[in-house]
Amino acid sequence: MKQEDRLTAEGFLFTDQYQLTMAQLYFHLGLHEKTVLFDHFFRSYPDYGGHQAGYCISAGLEWLVNWMKNAHCTEKDIEYLRQQSGRGGKRTFSDDFLTWLRRYGNFEAISMRAIPEGRVVHPNVPLTIIEGPIGLAQILETSLLNHLNFQTLIATKAARIFESGQGRLLLEFGLRRGSDCGANAATRAALIGGADFSSNVGVSHILGLSPKGTHAHSMVQLFMALGEGELEAFRAYSEVYPDDCLLLVDTIDTLESGIPNAIKVFEELRRKGHEPVGIRLDSGDLAFLSLQAAKMLDQAGFPDTTIVLSSNLDEMVIWQILTQIREEASRNGLEPDHVVQRLAFGVGTRLIVSWGEPALGGVYKLVAVCDEGDWKPAIKISDSPDKTPNPGHKNVWRIYDRRNKANADLLTLNNERPFESHPILLHHPTETTKFRTLSNEEVSKVEPLLIDVLEEGKLVYNFPDIRTLRKQRKSDVSRLDAGVRRLINPHIYHVSLSQSLWKLKRQLTESTFKPTN
Amino acid sequence: MKQEDRLTAEGFLFTDQYQLTMAQLYFHLGLHEKTVLFDHFFRSYPDYGGHQAGYCISAGLEWLVNWMKNAHCTEKDIEYLRQQSGRGGKRTFSDDFLTWLRRYGNFEAISMRAIPEGRVVHPNVPLTIIEGPIGLAQILETSLLNHLNFQTLIATKAARIFESGQGRLLLEFGLRRGSDCGANAATRAALIGGADFSSNVGVSHILGLSPKGTHAHSMVQLFMALGEGELEAFRAYSEVYPDDCLLLVDTIDTLESGIPNAIKVFEELRRKGHEPVGIRLDSGDLAFLSLQAAKMLDQAGFPDTTIVLSSNLDEMVIWQILTQIREEASRNGLEPDHVVQRLAFGVGTRLIVSWGEPALGGVYKLVAVCDEGDWKPAIKISDSPDKTPNPGHKNVWRIYDRRNKANADLLTLNNERPFESHPILLHHPTETTKFRTLSNEEVSKVEPLLIDVLEEGKLVYNFPDIRTLRKQRKSDVSRLDAGVRRLINPHIYHVSLSQSLWKLKRQLTESTFKPTN
Repeated sequence: MKQEDRLTAEGFLFTDQYQLTMAQLYFHLGLHEKTVLFDHFFRSYPDYGGHQAGYCISAGLEWLVNWMKNAHCTEKDIEYLRQQSGRGGKRTFSDDFLTWLRRYGNFEAISMRAIPEGRVVHPNVPLTIIEGPIGLAQILETSLLNHLNFQTLIATKAARIFESGQGRLLLEFGLRRGSDCGANAATRAALIGGADFSSNVGVSHILGLSPKGTHAHSMVQLFMALGEGELEAFRAYSEVYPDDCLLLVDTIDTLESGIPNAIKVFEELRRKGHEPVGIRLDSGDLAFLSLQAAKMLDQAGFPDTTIVLSSNLDEMVIWQILTQIREEASRNGLEPDHVVQRLAFGVGTRLIVSWGEPALGGVYKLVAVCDEGDWKPAIKISDSPDKTPNPGHKNVWRIYDRRNKANADLLTLNNERPFESHPILLHHPTETTKFRTLSNEEVSKVEPLLIDVLEEGKLVYNFPDIRTLRKQRKSDVSRLDAGVRRLINPHIYHVSLSQSLWKLKRQLTESTFKPTN
Repeated sequence: MKQEDRLTAEGFLFTDQYQLTMAQLYFHLGLHEKTVLFDHFFRSYPDYGGHQAGYCISAGLEWLVNWMKNAHCTEKDIEYLRQQSGRGGKRTFSDDFLTWLRRYGNFEAISMRAIPEGRVVHPNVPLTIIEGPIGLAQILETSLLNHLNFQTLIATKAARIFESGQGRLLLEFGLRRGSDCGANAATRAALIGGADFSSNVGVSHILGLSPKGTHAHSMVQLFMALGEGELEAFRAYSEVYPDDCLLLVDTIDTLESGIPNAIKVFEELRRKGHEPVGIRLDSGDLAFLSLQAAKMLDQAGFPDTTIVLSSNLDEMVIWQILTQIREEASRNGLEPDHVVQRLAFGVGTRLIVSWGEPALGGVYKLVAVCDEGDWKPAIKISDSPDKTPNPGHKNVWRIYDRRNKANADLLTLNNERPFESHPILLHHPTETTKFRTLSNEEVSKVEPLLIDVLEEGKLVYNFPDIRTLRKQRKSDVSRLDAGVRRLINPHIYHVSLSQSLWKLKRQLTESTFKPTN
């Protein structure tokens, strides 16, 4: 994109046309400044094809808020909107609406409560609640969903891949397969959700992390084209980076050429007083090659070198490789734990696009309208009861049991204080007769999940740095039951409604379902 | 992202760390200014899960070149690189390398030939050929792949979805499910590949197209929460947009409430001298509801109104819906063609993320090095022969048969002129004994596909506007055999090598496969 187009395409007009046509309709009816509440939530965990997630990791909030602080309707935007015309040939947007938009087209009137980034989150729980004049809250929808859906999707995939790696180092390598500059958002989300480091130089920089990477096949190819070989290429690398010597060994033949050449160079390095870092395997049967490489490196006296695996990895592939290595290590005269502990994973494509489920179906639904000082709940009736959003002005709580494990997320009306009630009643979100109760003795903590982020456009929250977000994520994941963390067929985490919220939802559904016209 | 971080994360450092460590290695060996050729190509068509594409549509070039013209290594970038340190605690990048990078860190020395945007393209054909000093050509890899892989992926999905829609209007609605600002690149690619219009206001603007969209469920919900109903909401919409009245009819109940209310409003509109545009269906059984809606609208005297379908559409869903409508229309007393012709498709998520195959595996491989004036071909030996890139300085030709259908793409050495040889020999890319010949009588045209885009950084190509790109795409697709265009199990299009290129490849493979060390 040209630089001069960027302000247009990534600014206030980074929205869908219908948001603007609806905003104009509200303006002409005098409704545009009516205060409303929109909930942002997703309806189901990503399902990567036979293995659906059991939890998600929230991400994207800081970049969304940065966008909101900068986006405002410019004169150039107005000029463009003025030129739009409809079928009748008449202008789509009237002068009085455009004058209003030029004056008020920004997000300074918006208040936001949200679940912070790096937290474990679940379906049908409001992750973000927007309060503000409907004209602007409506225009915000597209960008809000864009920013939060995507980073939450990628952070979730990263958490799964990290989980599958049994604590081994996880490197994000996907920039080349990401979506234009959206790849930067993916890198950030991956680093929140599970990646330890990334190859992405720019984003690592702005987040204060070291980017990772050594060399590609092309380096070895260059030496070969110039009449030298893999060994000379490795040697050159070891001379320039004697303390960071990690060599890609599969340009020609991993076992016959790559690893033997790497070992020669490692020996030379050691004689000069440097310890080699390790090798990277980027093709072939990675489980088999890991075992062979471990054996060869052990025998050559390099048992502490790392073996980085890359090439179409994801949580299932990593799980399978680790399982196979553990099964076959001793048959190869190797200690399984020792092989696993020297591994690291470089994950590119399948992390940066959330392979198997490349979109999170987060939605933004009108849940209440403030009319003459009263909050009137709004509802949309869909085909299935589980797609009907929970109406009204709400709050969200996480209930921990005596083991400090998260037991359920509870949605209540905004004025309810569930920790004050004994016992706590948790109603099933759609089935009338299903509920359970938790006595005081069973509950160790009731934690409010939403925090204030914006109060009428003013930032009232300090965004934590990435290290803090990662700590939060690790802490949240550790407080999930093992069954919920399982990669395949995880145990379903409970998201429940308070009795009052349940009653409100049922009452609205029943009064709306009969067509009123 | 903060505005001040954008220059860093989207500028020269929008690359992988290993590109920089390799560039420094070349610098220290005095190789960094050696002229090399890199080919960009993809190895196989996207496979969406049981239905692999038979062709791709190239896209992304203009935005890549815009990026290249702007990206240069800033003092701030250098500061950051200066702070990086390795395991030994020593700085990763030396002062002399950083001084060189500050001075030459841009793409002014790069030349580029490429297949233009909006063209049908095939696997293993160089889509982009970069010639330049290896230091910078290497750093360029990540951003080049990022820009071209993604837009080509999305343009290809859009072409398929358009194809499935039998010429009906295709609207791109995916901004909210895209990846941060990468969604803008997706919208552009969709508009090149097959979408007629998009809901994305900003990108439509910069491309000179009208964005499309009317209203969401929330508009109806607002009226309901304020004590009015769907009818009042529709009526309000028709008053503000009397000539563009397209109503979303599934907020409450499509058949019992939405369509009857829409018809009431359409009748009111007509009495005031306006013709309604139509309705949108966004949930439920879209084939069944389309037929019911068509019947109700016909009976009410609105046979010309459009029915827009949306909700998780992609090429397979659209194909299935159209098939079902054609089968069941007459049983419902409807003319099948008439129902199909009034349909339009709004496609969001599944287009903007290329559902089923969310990444294109395009690669960037060193194919030749200029050494003392001679081009020395480079090769990488992989596990399978079909993954071995075609070496050397090459050219690409499309051969059309007497029906003006594309018959094959032919890769030759750069100095070959296939249209001068009789007959043209087309060698299979991997199998020694497989080739075919085309006599002069069988060939109507031999078209060179690569054009010069950059000559040592200077733009020597006028990027066509989006309408021209769309014409090119339509023309290219029309010159494919119907079998190649098929959605499922398409006929394989031939990509062949000239005899000379085949010989070079075999010779290099054989001389390299024995480990030389």
